[in-house]
Amino acid sequence: MIIYRDARPGDEHRIHQLIVELAVFEREPLAVSNTASALNLHLFVEKICFAIVAEEKETNLIIGFSLYYFSYSTWKGICLYLEDIYVCESHRKLGVGQVLFDKVIVEARKNKVARMDWQVLNWNQSAINFYVKNNADLSDEWLNGRYFF
Amino acid sequence: MIIYRDARPGDEHRIHQLIVELAVFEREPLAVSNTASALNLHLFVEKICFAIVAEEKETNLIIGFSLYYFSYSTWKGICLYLEDIYVCESHRKLGVGQVLFDKVIVEARKNKVARMDWQVLNWNQSAINFYVKNNADLSDEWLNGRYFF
Repeated sequence: MIIYRDARPGDEHRIHQLIVELAVFEREPLAVSNTASALNLHLFVEKICFAIVAEEKETNLIIGFSLYYFSYSTWKGICLYLEDIYVCESHRKLGVGQVLFDKVIVEARKNKVARMDWQVLNWNQSAINFYVKNNADLSDEWLNGRYFF
Repeated sequence: MIIYRDARPGDEHRIHQLIVELAVFEREPLAVSNTASALNLHLFVEKICFAIVAEEKETNLIIGFSLYYFSYSTWKGICLYLEDIYVCESHRKLGVGQVLFDKVIVEARKNKVARMDWQVLNWNQSAINFYVKNNADLSDEWLNGRYFF
């Protein structure tokens, strides 16, 4: 049985592990410079981002999470950006990702944002199928520009 | 002669006009539901986003702007997202966009962000050339997911 709840202090260690797992899956194993203690600060002290966790009731192990923040569109005003949604390999195909996605949508509606945005790798077909099933609009019209400091 | 400065209350009307001009250029003329009064709130009261304007000294007319906010990456922590950079057609090819871009980079460095992100339409070749010239990393590996409320 899976419990869904807002992340709380102490969860940052496991969430950080899952962020690294996701980076490995996304073929960027060395990309994570963020730390568990910085996550604690950003999630629970500064509250610049928010996370929902999926926890296995028997073991108290977090097996998935979604993390989002409020972004801005000059066209639409305040939007919600879904930065990550991830479920451990051992717990996939059980609908956990769907519940995490739905719960972020509830937050988006509660906060009256005009739009929710996220990104998906163009080779991650199972994630693409998931978003198409959820009637999302998926576009390949934009390139991502990045500048590292 | 062009003056560059932080946006101040009252600029929201002209910035809103330029946002609409940019939406027309990006072939989404009806996409702007944001208003000048909401922009005033977001820029100057709630301070969830920030703008730099390029103003023609003789006429006091704003002929370009950049607008950004602080975003979040689970990999990198706090990042800066460059939402818009726009220069009126009448004032292009004069280096205004370069100054606006450089000034946002200064803000990114000042705030010690790990990464600056933005998007560019895959058919906007002059903008792509500009970013390539600026040694930016441009990727077409991600699809944009969107859900409208």
